[in-house]
This record gives sequence, structure tokens and C-alpha cells, in this order.
Amino acid sequence: MHILIIGAAGMLGRKLTQRLARDGTLGSSPVATLTLVDVVAPEVPEGFTGTADCIAADLSTPGTAARLVSGRPDVIFHFAAIVSGEAEADFEKGYRINLDGTRDLFEAVRLAHDTDGYFPRVVFASSIAVVGAPLPFPIPDDFHTTPLTSYGTQKAICELLLSDYTRRGFFDGIGIRLPTICIRPGKPNKAASGFFSNILREPLAGQEAVLPVPDTIRHWHTSPRSAVGFMIHAATMDLSRVGPRRNLSMPGLSATVADQIEALRRVAGDKAVALIRREPDPAIIRMCEGWAPGFEARRARELGFTAENSFDDIIRVHIEDELGGTP
Amino acid sequence: MHILIIGAAGMLGRKLTQRLARDGTLGSSPVATLTLVDVVAPEVPEGFTGTADCIAADLSTPGTAARLVSGRPDVIFHFAAIVSGEAEADFEKGYRINLDGTRDLFEAVRLAHDTDGYFPRVVFASSIAVVGAPLPFPIPDDFHTTPLTSYGTQKAICELLLSDYTRRGFFDGIGIRLPTICIRPGKPNKAASGFFSNILREPLAGQEAVLPVPDTIRHWHTSPRSAVGFMIHAATMDLSRVGPRRNLSMPGLSATVADQIEALRRVAGDKAVALIRREPDPAIIRMCEGWAPGFEARRARELGFTAENSFDDIIRVHIEDELGGTP
Repeated sequence: MHILIIGAAGMLGRKLTQRLARDGTLGSSPVATLTLVDVVAPEVPEGFTGTADCIAADLSTPGTAARLVSGRPDVIFHFAAIVSGEAEADFEKGYRINLDGTRDLFEAVRLAHDTDGYFPRVVFASSIAVVGAPLPFPIPDDFHTTPLTSYGTQKAICELLLSDYTRRGFFDGIGIRLPTICIRPGKPNKAASGFFSNILREPLAGQEAVLPVPDTIRHWHTSPRSAVGFMIHAATMDLSRVGPRRNLSMPGLSATVADQIEALRRVAGDKAVALIRREPDPAIIRMCEGWAPGFEARRARELGFTAENSFDDIIRVHIEDELGGTP
Repeated sequence: MHILIIGAAGMLGRKLTQRLARDGTLGSSPVATLTLVDVVAPEVPEGFTGTADCIAADLSTPGTAARLVSGRPDVIFHFAAIVSGEAEADFEKGYRINLDGTRDLFEAVRLAHDTDGYFPRVVFASSIAVVGAPLPFPIPDDFHTTPLTSYGTQKAICELLLSDYTRRGFFDGIGIRLPTICIRPGKPNKAASGFFSNILREPLAGQEAVLPVPDTIRHWHTSPRSAVGFMIHAATMDLSRVGPRRNLSMPGLSATVADQIEALRRVAGDKAVALIRREPDPAIIRMCEGWAPGFEARRARELGFTAENSFDDIIRVHIEDELGGTP
């Protein structure tokens, strides 16, 4: 089996690549070839014994999508995107990468389909940013997409394209609306939502972290491990069960910041919790209040997607996967 | 005031142009200039005393959108589209006209905004085809857009673009999700939904009409006069009341075919009804069953959009506007 991962150097791309290298299979098929693409060349995952082709490319430059599709990968994971803040700061770049790049990919697959019947599975990473406030809680599967960012708009448009290209029979597509991924490994970054991870990851490593919002803020989370699990399931499940509505809100954990802190206390004690410094930031509080508090995700659960049921579990996943099993 | 109408030779474009020519004003502003655009040059409306510029152009050809915007119209009505059947038959043409053409227009306005602060009102004709079966009845305002045609997909994407360009401050946009327009004037056409109009218009003119579906089929209708009313209201209302969710399902009349026939009987008698010939068409029946039975349209009603409350009224509008007042 030949697998193409676009956005393979990002957090999710790296984790998925590592998982595929470790498993050596996707579903019941051996992974013979990995084509890994990002704006910087991704690394060959440790222990992978098949053929790995690591490519530095910008999907939105003419000809790139056709080149990536020319090897006729059986499964395409498309994760590449300009993040929310950058898509808001640079309108043209956001549309070029997040919309035109994705459409170029879909078009390249369509033209290959017309040429020789090529029919890959396409797994697209969408986002809860496709919805916008005011939001009910929980958000039902049939809630409308009225994004309040250009990033969310671009993801919502790509979801529509994915459904239409699938309905027309050009490829077998599925869109995965990811919750906020928590605990993100690595250093604190400048994403407005970064604190959800920072207030757990940093104290677990003995470092201080800043909490810019009240404890009452509720949001929708899943672990990196579950996010990879969604992608594997999306790539291997029977899509005929999904029908024409190809974009699914993934299951996750709806939790307040207070829930996060109490889980940290249970797993790592008062000393860890004491490392959280409260520094309210009105701008982040305002943004936060518009974010999704949680989804029903009924269809995804019925289709076999699973996620954590407590923040204790999310913290344990981080300790196992990032800290070698010891907090 | 300078008004640009793209798609001015279509049914809705012609009716709106005639109304503007007759009123001489839009809201409280005199209409000084009409720029009328379509793939064939639209006609100058009878009785219009201002400047009319009639242009044959395809919005999706490079440079066209910038040229149309160069006169800095105060209000832009964008109705131009490849219809559903053609967008389904010709995938590339549908996306080129319905998506790329609209995006070109929005981009031309954005670039003009960046140049000199240009900030027009943009009224976009969307469609109930943005939703797809299975559908609740009535369909709430916050129901998701999961179209089952490429046409519906293109309209849903343009709705998302319109909201984002508005949110970013490039123009003041509003998307109008039109019900099926009934009674369409003119000859019977090949649109699958044509029978809704045919079974009324033809008998009113003493002609036979074919009914290809059962009497129980329920659908969502409004008259051409109301559709023009929506556009005028959209162009003149205070949009600050609308907030960021800029695409509105219009009010309409939810009625079965039986309701239509009984209204015809009340207005034009048994003789007219006897001209309806039942010829079930399984393909049309299948399509029909996926169409919208009716919308709640609560937000649009609260914002002052109004439509007919009975099919008797819809028939009377046709008699007044198309048949000189006499059935």
C-alpha cells in the first residue's frame, strides 16, 4: 500500500507517520511506500522498512498536486494548512494554501480519475472552527457551519468540496473535524488556544505556565493519540456506511479549565497545580467565549470513532507517549 | 445611485430591473445608473430615464469582474449562475461560473476596497439547494448545508465566502436563499422542478400540463414578485441587525401539489384543473423526494422579509403580473 501524507511535518502528520512506521500496516495492508510532504521536507520515521519519499513542496504551487498524485497513492491524508492566526493575518495566503491548495489536490485526483479510473481514499483534517458563536451545548451533528475566522471558512469550503467530489465518484473522501488537540507536545506556542495544553504540559515538566482565562471556560479536547486513531479509522473503515454527509464532528471530551486543573492535581499533585499562574488576558477571554464548548458527535461515535472520557486519561496519554511513562 | 445587476437577463434579473425602472428609486435613493450584465446583453427596461449600460459578459473570464466593479456601483446584485442541471452535467463549467465567477467578483471588490475604501452592498442569490436530504420539516435556520448537487455545493461555498468577506470588512454582503419560484412566467422548461409552475401557468392559459409526481409531494415556494421584494429589502435594510450570519433562508409557502391544485380550482375552476394530465415519472419523483419541504425562516421574517401565505395569493400574483389581471 502507498500512503501520501500532506502536512507530514506537522504535529499530527509526524504522529501519524510514526504510528504507521511502528504498525507497518494500515488496516490489514502492509505499508510499502510512504510519500511524506510538507513545506520543509519531513523526516523518514524511525524503524520504517518500506520506501519513504520525503518531499519539500507547497501544495498551492502549480503542478505540485499533479506530481503528488502521479504515484497513485492508495490513501491520501491531507493535513496541510496555514493555521488560524496566520490565515487571519494574511488573507491571500490563507485562501491560497487552505482553499486553493486543497482544491488543486482534489482536481489532480479528479483528472487522474478521468484518465485511468484512479480512486483513492482521501482523509481531510477539518476543524471545529467551521462552527461559530453563538453555539448550543452540545453542538448537534446537523448544526450549521457559520465560521468566524477565514481559517474556519476555508475548512468549511473544503468540506463541501470533499463531499461533492465524493458524491461525483472522483474519490472516496472523509472529513474529520478535529477537536482541539490536548496535550500538544513541544514548546508553548503563540496560538491563542495554547494555554489548554500549556497549563498541563509545563507543570508536568516542572515548569510554570500562564492561564489567561477563568476556570469556567469550557472547551472540546482530544489527545494526539486519539487524533491519530481517528485518521487510521477514517482511512480503513467502510465508507459506504457514511452516506453523502462526509464530514464528521469527532468525539472528544468537553471540559472546563477547572476540570483540567483537578485532573492535573489527581495525576501530579498540588505541587504541579501550584505552577499555574493566573494572568487574565481580556483578548483571549473574548476569543475563548466564542469557541465550541462540545459536540454531540453522535454519528462519529456510531461509526466507531472513539476518544478519551476524562482529562485524567488525556494526561496519562501524554505521560505515556511523551514522558516515557513517568510524570 | 449606481446599481449593478449581474444575471440581469434571467427571470429574476429582468423582474428586478423592471421594478427598479418603475420605482425610479431603491429605498429613498434615485436610481441614476443601471449596469446590466449577462451572457447575452440585457435590454434597457421600459420607462427607465437614467443611464443604462447593458453588457454581454461572462463573469468568469479574466478581467471581467474588475471591469464591472471599476464604475464603483453602490449596490451589486449577483444572480448569475449555471442552473442545477447544467452544473451537474458539466462539472468544470459549473465550478467555473458558479464558484470562480462569484469569487472573482468578491476579489475585485476586495481589491477595490484596498485601493480606495470602496464598500458596496452585495446581494447574492443563493438557493434552498444548499440543503440536502434527509431533511426535517420545517428546516430550522441553523440546519447544516449538505447539498446533494454540485450547484448546491457551489451556492453553499459562495455563502461562506460572502460571510467571510463581509466579516473582514471588504463589502456589506447578504445572501438570500430563494425558495422555488412559482409561478415562473414563460414557456415550460426542462428543469425537473418545472412542473410546479407548469401545472398552474398552462391551465390558466387554457393549455394542458403534465404532472409527473404524486399530489402528496410537499415543496417550498414563493412568487416572482416576492423574490424581487426580498432583493429590494436585502439591498435597503439595516444590515447591522443581521450580524455575522449573512445567509438567510427566505420565507415562503410550504405546500403540497394537492394544495396547488385546490388553489387553482378555487381561482380558475374545474375546467382549468381538468387540463392537468398525470404522467408519473420515477426519475422526477426520486429527485423530488429529496427536495426541501419548507423552512422555518424565523430570522428572515424577524428581519422584515415577507412572502405569500396561500397558493391562491401566488396564483393571483401571476394573474396580476403576467396576465393583465384576468385569468
